Amino acid sequence: MAKELTSRSENYSQWYNDLVIKADLAENSAVRGCMVIKPYGYAIWEKMQAELDRMFKETGHVNAYFPLFIPKSFFSREASHVEGFAKECAVVTHYRLKNSPDGKGVIVDPEARLEEELIVRPTSETIIWSTYKNWIHSYRDLPILCNQWANVVRWEMRTRLFLRTAEFLWQEGHTAHATQQEALDEARKMLDVYAEFAENFLAIPVIKGVKSANERFAGALETFCIEALMQDGKALQAGTSHFLGQNFAKAFDVTFVNEKNEQEYVWASSWGVSTRLMGALIMTHSDDNGLVLPPNIAPYQVIIVPIYKTPEQRIAIAQKVEEIIPKLKALNISVKFDNNDTKKPGWKFAEYELKGVPVRLALGSRDLENNTVEVARRDTLTKETVSIDGIENYIADLLREIQKTIYKKAVDYRSSVTREVNSYDEFKTEIEKGGFLLCHWDGTPETEELIKNETKATIRCIPLSGEKIPGKCMVTGKPSAGRVIIARAY
Amino acid sequence: MAKELTSRSENYSQWYNDLVIKADLAENSAVRGCMVIKPYGYAIWEKMQAELDRMFKETGHVNAYFPLFIPKSFFSREASHVEGFAKECAVVTHYRLKNSPDGKGVIVDPEARLEEELIVRPTSETIIWSTYKNWIHSYRDLPILCNQWANVVRWEMRTRLFLRTAEFLWQEGHTAHATQQEALDEARKMLDVYAEFAENFLAIPVIKGVKSANERFAGALETFCIEALMQDGKALQAGTSHFLGQNFAKAFDVTFVNEKNEQEYVWASSWGVSTRLMGALIMTHSDDNGLVLPPNIAPYQVIIVPIYKTPEQRIAIAQKVEEIIPKLKALNISVKFDNNDTKKPGWKFAEYELKGVPVRLALGSRDLENNTVEVARRDTLTKETVSIDGIENYIADLLREIQKTIYKKAVDYRSSVTREVNSYDEFKTEIEKGGFLLCHWDGTPETEELIKNETKATIRCIPLSGEKIPGKCMVTGKPSAGRVIIARAY
Repeated sequence: MAKELTSRSENYSQWYNDLVIKADLAENSAVRGCMVIKPYGYAIWEKMQAELDRMFKETGHVNAYFPLFIPKSFFSREASHVEGFAKECAVVTHYRLKNSPDGKGVIVDPEARLEEELIVRPTSETIIWSTYKNWIHSYRDLPILCNQWANVVRWEMRTRLFLRTAEFLWQEGHTAHATQQEALDEARKMLDVYAEFAENFLAIPVIKGVKSANERFAGALETFCIEALMQDGKALQAGTSHFLGQNFAKAFDVTFVNEKNEQEYVWASSWGVSTRLMGALIMTHSDDNGLVLPPNIAPYQVIIVPIYKTPEQRIAIAQKVEEIIPKLKALNISVKFDNNDTKKPGWKFAEYELKGVPVRLALGSRDLENNTVEVARRDTLTKETVSIDGIENYIADLLREIQKTIYKKAVDYRSSVTREVNSYDEFKTEIEKGGFLLCHWDGTPETEELIKNETKATIRCIPLSGEKIPGKCMVTGKPSAGRVIIARAY
Repeated sequence: MAKELTSRSENYSQWYNDLVIKADLAENSAVRGCMVIKPYGYAIWEKMQAELDRMFKETGHVNAYFPLFIPKSFFSREASHVEGFAKECAVVTHYRLKNSPDGKGVIVDPEARLEEELIVRPTSETIIWSTYKNWIHSYRDLPILCNQWANVVRWEMRTRLFLRTAEFLWQEGHTAHATQQEALDEARKMLDVYAEFAENFLAIPVIKGVKSANERFAGALETFCIEALMQDGKALQAGTSHFLGQNFAKAFDVTFVNEKNEQEYVWASSWGVSTRLMGALIMTHSDDNGLVLPPNIAPYQVIIVPIYKTPEQRIAIAQKVEEIIPKLKALNISVKFDNNDTKKPGWKFAEYELKGVPVRLALGSRDLENNTVEVARRDTLTKETVSIDGIENYIADLLREIQKTIYKKAVDYRSSVTREVNSYDEFKTEIEKGGFLLCHWDGTPETEELIKNETKATIRCIPLSGEKIPGKCMVTGKPSAGRVIIARAY
């Protein structure tokens, strides 16, 4: 099974596609650019959702649901928003089909044309701010801290499972505030939530930063992001949080009476992460044998495989396993016992390796005699035989250890390919090797555009942390306030 | 606040609309027929989701996600499906907008016309069975037990919040089986899950039954349903589960090799409940003062309102409340403390009554002196003063008692308006009074159609339980196998 995967060194992109398909995470559907998220992939997404939802609620947010469709005219209200969005999108023009006159199938009923076309939401700022207009009158109605779990559609021409699909699943937070500072604080707070989630839960190290003007969200005054680095040296934007100023409030005329009894436009933030995180998760940790899942996100953390020759042995092993399972569950460890008789242990080993289950326990007859079990780690592919007594605590410790090790490995990799570059010539050589390049940039869109056109690399972000040491732009020699992170990106 | 609600006796339909709006459950959006589900309404829906999801998983199901869009041609594949669906639906014809030549806004780019139109899913049998074709080869691949949480769109002309909207949220289970019996058992099992959920969790009594051929799902061989009765005497279909036979397998050519090594078409079931359940919940229990929520589904089960005159009293009460809250939480009781200083207790009392919070605790200075608290029940609107010692156990018992009382009240109401009717003349008089009418029917679509046309009543279901006593059709006098339930319905 595992050997059917293309290796990373041979073709990273093909390895990724193979893995997504063979580990039963997702597949392409009959509809161009839309994916089917298969049960195993969806189980991982559900764990992400549950943890994020918990974090959102802990920080005072509530969920709500807004319409899938947005009237076309709404997009024209916010000038830069319409430039950045609303071009490549699904347009609903009719609301009825009818039987074809030739008796074969159905056709669109030309009489059922909508007066105004509806756009399938590519993002919901416009429909939500048109709604907030009715919810907000006074500073007492603020803040509004809503999140929505939803599907969105952007008509991408070149799609890749999880990374770029026409339809994808995400959450989008849309908050309304009485002051600029509060909206800015909210955007920063949610960036921190995302970073914490990525690092502690998904074991993906990220750099928190600000986007350059070119890379800003359409309609935002400031876009914050977390940037991750994949094993092939390409960057992946894993989440964004936007300070929207009063742009959408002005576009939809959303004002409130402040404490001084003055009318004022409302301040906004929005923030989102999507099923793209699945791609980041896969590409950060997995190897040529398949998925490697951090224990926190694994649909099951432990797989138990019995190794037997006779039915009697099978029964005896199953009895022992049924003793172990409740002990693991009592420590909140999720476990699956694969006692399927139609598959060989070797097949099962390869299957769960492919699926990234963090720990595999194998139990044979000799183990029963010795009161032992073979414990295999997915991340290091190492095995050892340990006593069944106290196995639950051993596994609990091991899962914590694996979570840490996986994270550290990703941090170490990132460190190894993050370096300062001081001339544009050096940059052109180094960018071919991948990784994060720390460069001085003069802050102009023109230089950024030139770098992008000549090298396909983009400014991933201006890092929020670390000392800002001024220097000279590697391209123009003009003054730079501090190094920015440049990389090729997904 | 509460007095702004239209009373049920005055205008039931207006009462419902008032309540949905004023209790902050949902509102109409800028898009015709699409609703905004507001945070309080969504919190109730989330509790429904969590409990149903738990029940689905407990019965062996997994979640997955299939595309929002369905190619138009897919609907023509299953002959009766296209008749019943796919007519009133949102049709995507284009994938791009462009700037209007007059510089004002955006227009649909006529060059970005799709080769084949896409339909926004009204239900997903077609896209899912086209996918299952690739998943199923042998009996070893079966059963497939997938569920999906999704939004769907049906272009309804007359919409009402939660009850009938163009876009709504639901879950749809789609299962594939090796035998007819297994698919039929699955459809019945999920009906039982729905009934258990409705009765034990939502406190809505339901009758399990089979639909007549006229009322069957388009493409099903048999549709099972749970039917609830609203306080105005109208029925509401609260969930359906379909035995689809091999219809979709044939339409999408999904075959498998069975244990005898023969090619066979796969057997199917599908089942769903939607945000319509919100309407059923509201209309089953609520009263002229607002929502009445069964404790199991309430976003918070207990609201605590402090009653004070001085800041010192406010602080002293808050201290006492902070002692009570952890005790309640330890018993898994959800509680909110409304210590907002800008609203009077009277306003809060009315607000939480409107929002249906099952139990209200009010604490004043005298309560502090006496170590007591005033406990008010939302369902009966009764109050009593009890000791704070052991309050957590008192409340836990009370919540169970309220859940039971609310259910019993609904059962009693239904019993009071369920009766046998033996002639069509009697039927015509009785149907005006509402309720479930138990009638003999000759089993023909013609008689069913006549009853519907003349009285606007429909056969809600042929009940699954109870003895079948033959009789004569109240309309035609022809033989009837047993009484069916007829009512006017939402």
